[in-house]
Amino acid sequence: MTDIKIILASKSPRRQELIKGLALPFEVFTYEVDESFDARDTPAMIAEKLAIKKAAHYPKQIAEKEILLTADTIVWINGKVLNKPANEAESFEMLSSICGQTHEVFTGVCLKTHAAQFSFSERTKVTCKNLREEEIWYYIKNHQPFDKAGSYGIQDWFGYTAVEKIEGCFYNVMGLPISRVNEEIQKIKKK
Amino acid sequence: MTDIKIILASKSPRRQELIKGLALPFEVFTYEVDESFDARDTPAMIAEKLAIKKAAHYPKQIAEKEILLTADTIVWINGKVLNKPANEAESFEMLSSICGQTHEVFTGVCLKTHAAQFSFSERTKVTCKNLREEEIWYYIKNHQPFDKAGSYGIQDWFGYTAVEKIEGCFYNVMGLPISRVNEEIQKIKKK
Repeated sequence: MTDIKIILASKSPRRQELIKGLALPFEVFTYEVDESFDARDTPAMIAEKLAIKKAAHYPKQIAEKEILLTADTIVWINGKVLNKPANEAESFEMLSSICGQTHEVFTGVCLKTHAAQFSFSERTKVTCKNLREEEIWYYIKNHQPFDKAGSYGIQDWFGYTAVEKIEGCFYNVMGLPISRVNEEIQKIKKK
Repeated sequence: MTDIKIILASKSPRRQELIKGLALPFEVFTYEVDESFDARDTPAMIAEKLAIKKAAHYPKQIAEKEILLTADTIVWINGKVLNKPANEAESFEMLSSICGQTHEVFTGVCLKTHAAQFSFSERTKVTCKNLREEEIWYYIKNHQPFDKAGSYGIQDWFGYTAVEKIEGCFYNVMGLPISRVNEEIQKIKKK
């Protein structure tokens, strides 16, 4: 399969930027999917199943030379999922909980063609230093991180000042484990 | 010390972007410094000493509310430093040597005020997968990575496709361990 086109089903500007960086043909197509999950699942399963669910709800037929790419990123700390915060108070609560600790970020990915489907999930550990309350509020007020799981972007002010170290794929934290995604796309192309 | 201004002594557009992300006042000032080093030093020392040397050669007086920031990034693999490649052949050689292996990136940083100087170096481990020769050439031809230590950018196509995982600070690989740098700047400001 050559001349493939990737259909990125994601509103995330970070994911669009990452896919663009691969220099492969792609287009973005978005639609609403219910993002509820079974809290008894492991975080890896939650992320992977959400990616699969997004692929299952793709409202069009996948053409022969297309690969549908869906993904879901969750932040996992103290046995719980941090979603996107609904407001400033929730944002503050989330950021306070991750500061001074190590949390895990899981991105589930599903690659679907007209003939087959492949999914996986990848984990990155992220260690954040303590921020003062006024620093957390500075971030919330100036960056409005309400569209981000865990309420932060590793590529913005929070990532610059609070993220001390990571273990795993950096881009996984941004929303897509891009080297692994590229590898799987290359495998599909060879088929 | 409040109302400080950072003087970033670096031509690197990556470092300029990172400092900009801190939302602190800064300006860029560049000058030439001989980047030779003692190969018997540890890689951490090589990077730190080069940052100190750059600070020592700053041709102006540091004003009272200024912090001079200098840095040097080296790639270390198999007991050797990889500098910036001189040409395509050297670039190919460097990239071939890091593919399929884990290497280390050291950034040395020096922060200097009119009254004192502080330096440190930070290490990040980077694991790259194997690329095919034609992929390495695609990267060299399309990205001309000649201004980069080790001949790659973790924030470009090579980082997207070849870097499997890292351990440590991502931005350290881009040229500045920005969360640590910010921490040290805040300490100086409090004095």
